[in-house]
Amino acid sequence: MAVSSLHCVQSLGFSSRGRAFFPVGDCSRDNARKSKNCLVFASGKKSDRDLCLESRVETLLDSVKWDDKGLAVAIAQNIDTGAILMQGFVNRDALATTISSRKATFYSRSRSSLWTKGETSKNFINIHDIFLDCDCDSIIYLGKPDGPTCHTGSETCYYTSVNDVLEQKQTEGSRLALTTLYSLESTISQRKAELAAPEHGKPSWTKRLLLDNNLLCSKIREEADELCRTIEENEHSTRTASEMGDVLYHAMVLLALKDVKMEDVLDVLRCRFTQSGIEEKKSRGQQN
Amino acid sequence: MAVSSLHCVQSLGFSSRGRAFFPVGDCSRDNARKSKNCLVFASGKKSDRDLCLESRVETLLDSVKWDDKGLAVAIAQNIDTGAILMQGFVNRDALATTISSRKATFYSRSRSSLWTKGETSKNFINIHDIFLDCDCDSIIYLGKPDGPTCHTGSETCYYTSVNDVLEQKQTEGSRLALTTLYSLESTISQRKAELAAPEHGKPSWTKRLLLDNNLLCSKIREEADELCRTIEENEHSTRTASEMGDVLYHAMVLLALKDVKMEDVLDVLRCRFTQSGIEEKKSRGQQN
Repeated sequence: MAVSSLHCVQSLGFSSRGRAFFPVGDCSRDNARKSKNCLVFASGKKSDRDLCLESRVETLLDSVKWDDKGLAVAIAQNIDTGAILMQGFVNRDALATTISSRKATFYSRSRSSLWTKGETSKNFINIHDIFLDCDCDSIIYLGKPDGPTCHTGSETCYYTSVNDVLEQKQTEGSRLALTTLYSLESTISQRKAELAAPEHGKPSWTKRLLLDNNLLCSKIREEADELCRTIEENEHSTRTASEMGDVLYHAMVLLALKDVKMEDVLDVLRCRFTQSGIEEKKSRGQQN
Repeated sequence: MAVSSLHCVQSLGFSSRGRAFFPVGDCSRDNARKSKNCLVFASGKKSDRDLCLESRVETLLDSVKWDDKGLAVAIAQNIDTGAILMQGFVNRDALATTISSRKATFYSRSRSSLWTKGETSKNFINIHDIFLDCDCDSIIYLGKPDGPTCHTGSETCYYTSVNDVLEQKQTEGSRLALTTLYSLESTISQRKAELAAPEHGKPSWTKRLLLDNNLLCSKIREEADELCRTIEENEHSTRTASEMGDVLYHAMVLLALKDVKMEDVLDVLRCRFTQSGIEEKKSRGQQN
């Protein structure tokens, strides 16, 4: 939402200078508020730390600008690919449940009840972080899905292209809302699938690469070399962008041949960069 | 939305077998319906083709499951990076306007009027495609923003991390909802910024690469070679994913040194793969 006078960052705990709103270790005021939502923390006697966290969650929930039905929009996004998986609504309890369970949970308007994505299919969306927008009335659930999100079995719920409909494209199946990298990945994958069918005329460059490992590998090494030369020979940055595009494209053809998805690569990178160097080396040792 | 008995793809123009709902060249039925929304096509006498398109847009608008206020959720997403830029609501007219103008347009609930993102700031979101979800009540505007989307000047409206708030992170500024690739890009960029400050102890690997072009380029060439060897020596696909991760990371350090964003690279790739080979070679000639 673009126009707003509400600066919710401040109400969420940060002053404009970035100072924490909740002074560490000063929870006497917060403890008095006690939990009134469905948060399920560890049972038994609660430590000061738990009470502190609960009251911070309360304040956060208070800061959301719930609509006249007590709802806000929640968008589930794949943390690795950026794909928008689905969109639902949340009420106070649904958001609190997501925060505590780390499984994307929504409020079903038709059934008037909470539902956790995956409770039937087991395809949960495992939450890594949650983001609020500038108006505090829209939420991103940034997470990793266990499997396809849509009840139709589709990876995401967005598979109807308005362009295709208006251009009367005779699409046999559905076409997902793909951003550039995944659109390219999908095209390469299509070319690979087409290899089985006999073809007339000159094959595309992608098909030639898919059919010839020597050609493909010599191109990957050549493009990596050209990328390096843009810094070694101080070439213009537009040249760097173009050479990096070449590296990416050719490397993605190799990924397709090895049946590796870009999502798998990003998963590796995420795990590598969210753990310490020691942990990472250890996990590499276990993999190899 | 996960649970629905509505199969909106069919109502949008496709039978379950993928046959077009609107037989090509048979618009007599459609012409009779005439336009009743705000679509602005070329003025003057309308061709059969224009009338055909208008009626297809009408059918599409009819298929959207508008809520009790006549609204649906619209999410604007960057076609290259996948970043969720903002979320608003659309009514029938807002969606029709977006389809015809190719600029993301919403319905302001507070002002009860249409507004096109960028009408004041000039930071329009240029639409490449629009996607409907399986329930036809949620829409993705897949587009390219001309500049920052948020009224605060932030690239997107989602810059308040619930993790940061609950962990009382003393964030000086705000942290955008970044997916893996852009989170890595942001970390590398931070390391580059930190180079200016004097440091005690051993510099991180990223900093060492940023400070030594020879080391960086030898690593990029080495990692590209290792990626190739996973196919030449028929290594396991997990090895391919790992080596591709290495290629990406090291190449992204080079991008940071050349002040090239991954978004620029993806822009190059999108332009390259949505034009013919002849056009692409021509545009390369103009760039170089």
